[in-house]
Amino acid sequence: MRKQFAELPRMSAFKHKPFLKTGDDKDTLADGKRLRVIVLGGNEEVGRNCTLLEYGNDIIIIDMGLQFPDEDMPGVDYIIPNMSYVKGKEKNIRGVIFTHAHLDHIGAVSHIINKIGNPPMFATDLTCGLINKRHSEYQDKPQLNLRSVKSNDVLRLGSFTVEFFGVAHSVPGSMGIVVNTPCGTIVHTGDFKIDDNPGSQSIQETEKIKALGKRKILAMLADSTNASQPGRQLPEHEIQTNIDEIIEHSQGRLIIGTFSSMISRIQQIIFACERHGRKVAIEGFSMKSNIAIAQELGYMKIQKDTLIDSKRIDDYPRDKVAVVCTGAQGEERAALMRIANREHKTLSIEPGDTVVFSSSVIPGNERMVQRVKDTLYREGADVIHYKMMDVHAGGHAKQEDLQELLGWVRPKYLVPIEGHYSFLMEHAKTAERAGFPHDNIFIADNGQILEFDHKGNGQLTNKKVPTEYVFVDGLGVGDTNRIVLRDRKELSGDGIVIVVAVVETQTGALLNLPDIISRGFIYMKDSQELIQSARRYSAKILKDDNPKSAANPTYMKEKLRDDLGEFLYKKTERRPMILPVIVEV
Amino acid sequence: MRKQFAELPRMSAFKHKPFLKTGDDKDTLADGKRLRVIVLGGNEEVGRNCTLLEYGNDIIIIDMGLQFPDEDMPGVDYIIPNMSYVKGKEKNIRGVIFTHAHLDHIGAVSHIINKIGNPPMFATDLTCGLINKRHSEYQDKPQLNLRSVKSNDVLRLGSFTVEFFGVAHSVPGSMGIVVNTPCGTIVHTGDFKIDDNPGSQSIQETEKIKALGKRKILAMLADSTNASQPGRQLPEHEIQTNIDEIIEHSQGRLIIGTFSSMISRIQQIIFACERHGRKVAIEGFSMKSNIAIAQELGYMKIQKDTLIDSKRIDDYPRDKVAVVCTGAQGEERAALMRIANREHKTLSIEPGDTVVFSSSVIPGNERMVQRVKDTLYREGADVIHYKMMDVHAGGHAKQEDLQELLGWVRPKYLVPIEGHYSFLMEHAKTAERAGFPHDNIFIADNGQILEFDHKGNGQLTNKKVPTEYVFVDGLGVGDTNRIVLRDRKELSGDGIVIVVAVVETQTGALLNLPDIISRGFIYMKDSQELIQSARRYSAKILKDDNPKSAANPTYMKEKLRDDLGEFLYKKTERRPMILPVIVEV
Repeated sequence: MRKQFAELPRMSAFKHKPFLKTGDDKDTLADGKRLRVIVLGGNEEVGRNCTLLEYGNDIIIIDMGLQFPDEDMPGVDYIIPNMSYVKGKEKNIRGVIFTHAHLDHIGAVSHIINKIGNPPMFATDLTCGLINKRHSEYQDKPQLNLRSVKSNDVLRLGSFTVEFFGVAHSVPGSMGIVVNTPCGTIVHTGDFKIDDNPGSQSIQETEKIKALGKRKILAMLADSTNASQPGRQLPEHEIQTNIDEIIEHSQGRLIIGTFSSMISRIQQIIFACERHGRKVAIEGFSMKSNIAIAQELGYMKIQKDTLIDSKRIDDYPRDKVAVVCTGAQGEERAALMRIANREHKTLSIEPGDTVVFSSSVIPGNERMVQRVKDTLYREGADVIHYKMMDVHAGGHAKQEDLQELLGWVRPKYLVPIEGHYSFLMEHAKTAERAGFPHDNIFIADNGQILEFDHKGNGQLTNKKVPTEYVFVDGLGVGDTNRIVLRDRKELSGDGIVIVVAVVETQTGALLNLPDIISRGFIYMKDSQELIQSARRYSAKILKDDNPKSAANPTYMKEKLRDDLGEFLYKKTERRPMILPVIVEV
Repeated sequence: MRKQFAELPRMSAFKHKPFLKTGDDKDTLADGKRLRVIVLGGNEEVGRNCTLLEYGNDIIIIDMGLQFPDEDMPGVDYIIPNMSYVKGKEKNIRGVIFTHAHLDHIGAVSHIINKIGNPPMFATDLTCGLINKRHSEYQDKPQLNLRSVKSNDVLRLGSFTVEFFGVAHSVPGSMGIVVNTPCGTIVHTGDFKIDDNPGSQSIQETEKIKALGKRKILAMLADSTNASQPGRQLPEHEIQTNIDEIIEHSQGRLIIGTFSSMISRIQQIIFACERHGRKVAIEGFSMKSNIAIAQELGYMKIQKDTLIDSKRIDDYPRDKVAVVCTGAQGEERAALMRIANREHKTLSIEPGDTVVFSSSVIPGNERMVQRVKDTLYREGADVIHYKMMDVHAGGHAKQEDLQELLGWVRPKYLVPIEGHYSFLMEHAKTAERAGFPHDNIFIADNGQILEFDHKGNGQLTNKKVPTEYVFVDGLGVGDTNRIVLRDRKELSGDGIVIVVAVVETQTGALLNLPDIISRGFIYMKDSQELIQSARRYSAKILKDDNPKSAANPTYMKEKLRDDLGEFLYKKTERRPMILPVIVEV
């Protein structure tokens, strides 16, 4: 029997958190069918956002994002939400809705689609365009059943009725979701900031959001990404002003490295270049295709003669052109790195050029970013770091914004989502300071089930559905597990030593001096003495075995692993993985 | 013949940098013996600080620090300066001088001592104490020839005369060095900030430093760690005020995680605790021993009844005690982690306690720090992040400080040291803005030789001595090289697949279906089908070989590596290391 629910193994969150309903076994809700809300990913972490709503035989899913692996997950490409909960219930999925076009909200679709049937999916046109573009990179996957919606559309999905409201974020077409359920109305903000006039074809539908406050919203799930930060997020027009200033004061050729998904920021850069008389060359494949999609759908306004091909850039004075490219994270093959290293076909740095890094550095990339910067300094560039163009900067509500939204929507319950546990807690504290009753704030772990009854009461249960990481690794989805990762980490630490011994099957007698092959342990050419003594020591270990009895490879392997490991540790203070290969002939 | 000098492979720094002497082959210096100054480590990077001065047969070395490995150097413990240049010249080393007691200045001593003879070494008493403590952890190393000096001492070391001046930094006993040479006087600042009253038994000898301005200093080598930061560094008394405020407003038990080498910060924390009536428990082995050494030498003033044993902490009200401990970087076994995880014998968190992280997060540690924080939030702690107690925060001169020092010392040449290339350049630009002539600023790569003649002229030559990384890995110093690291990285990415094939020596005929063992590639238990098909495919590869001819293991191995690698990539899009083992019987 598949174990769908697991008791939460550790109850400290309940014991100590005043914000949590006690969650003990007593069930305070009315009998009858209940609405379940389960955050499958995005809590206790940043990334792989995915939330599930279930009532009877109806399920809808909001977002299917990916997360980038930590440094202790070598070889892993992405982490995606764990969809075990819907196994066997695929036919119940009435729809998947995407809030906006960033990878931590859409990136897992192509990896998950085979596991959830092929339900209808809904998003604004730009989000659809970027989902389709990404999906086209994966062969052998079914075509998506993806439909474009507008913010005034209403969807009937089983017992749910879904509405939308436009929100301000760093990509156009971002929406919050309103789900009317038999137990009450749930609001999911997606990623958002508070900004009445975000520009770039984005629209914050303030009146629609405020109108929610009159509809007795049961619960609001809201973005906690910047909940640790006091005050208010910068409005987009100020970000635009800052970008204008940087571009106005740039010397020489201007090169701006940013993310290709930051459609609104790229638009602002292009606006500023147009105002300051710079032509713009776009570099990087994903950058070009994203801009093309956004332009086609009317989400980017670019004057006819603004964009130029980088091949023709030398036709213009250096201070009349700008290059917008990928690579602000020091990615090895991205345009910025190639430009810095003089490996780019048409672009290079001259002294006095200006290079703008438009993002804060993602943990793990510091070394590479510093390396690119140093190279750019050596080439004579002026280097500017402007974090406000970052993925997670500028686009998310800060504490006062969160309080304002709460005042508009006035939900009965608040469920902070999207962020490490500490972010969720800061969100809760922020709400409390604004007078929100702390018993009505649910801080859910990933997978922890929230239930709501028909009387409009909710509780954070102590039941949990599976949310263990699912790794995407090459073509494999979910086949790289903790054991494989543990081995990779062990291998990377001190390498591997393979001992090959040939023994006589009948007697277990060793037929020659065992061979030793190592990789990543020690430089073998310079360590012949150590290798020879390890061979002799291995022979000794194997000869200690009773020569009269038949070979017992399992026992011999274990002995080699332990004793040779100890021998090598004493000699080197390193602990390579020891892999004995016993060949019986 | 040992190749001592290598031409600089890449000349862009010269082509483009207005700050550099052109460094082309024409030698502008007067004939005769010359002073050589070589930064062996600490430029183009942060860490492994080491500078060498040579005149005729006399060498002195300033600092021998270590650097922590980047994330692309798995298994490496430390990086240390490359001392190849002094090979064969060990007897010329008249002395090693340490500026202060931080690991990036003293940490490589125990690993290098065997390679440089055992020259006399000089440092202030606290620095000596901490060097000796560290050295005692390494067995089989010669006793150090280490002598304590005071800032008014004068050393005669061959043709050099060495003086000192006290500087303000985050550890007491920090000194700048003045080296009088036959070609002129060189000043080396060590790590420093400008602060007339640093407290904590530190003394900035301002008058002594200003007096250098009248001595026609030939060149000053100065700390660039914070040269990218405009303005002035916070004075220590303001840092003290900030620490006082944090401690005054802390609720519950106060737990402060910091580095054990931050002697001055720890002193400030203890002062503040005393003022606010908190007893202090010290946790962590290195923390305890460093404090003991500093106390014994009079560098820490602690009231008699301030320190308590953590075993007795429950005898005091929670708001009357503080714990100072290691672990602010999320280190797995450090005290803070154990406290958060309830694994500490005597200490744990209760709701309302305050935890202070006193350092910014070192790249690579973000995940672990966030994990500890989340755990602390779950336990109900208030978590504060105060970066000013950080290793590289608060202790280093910023741009206006650097300009002030230049005005005091008025050297003929400026050599920015200690920092990434971009930091050195920012230092140079800062000096230029203060009117320093840009032709007199030398931005040297590690190992790039600076020469000075008897007429007081200097040049940055285009000759370079070896400075390749030397890795400390377990007991090995320098035996882990780029090939070993490349293998470790390859192993960590997609693991290893070992193919064991037994062939008949005479005919090369395969005697059985090859075995496949993998680690870190795929979870073998769930992948039997793939493994079986890989075995069959390997057999096919090996059988294609001409069965009439004798076995050619080299050829067979190469074929297996290529063809099986391609086979597995097609099936999985992973590229494990393929290691063929051909056993001939």
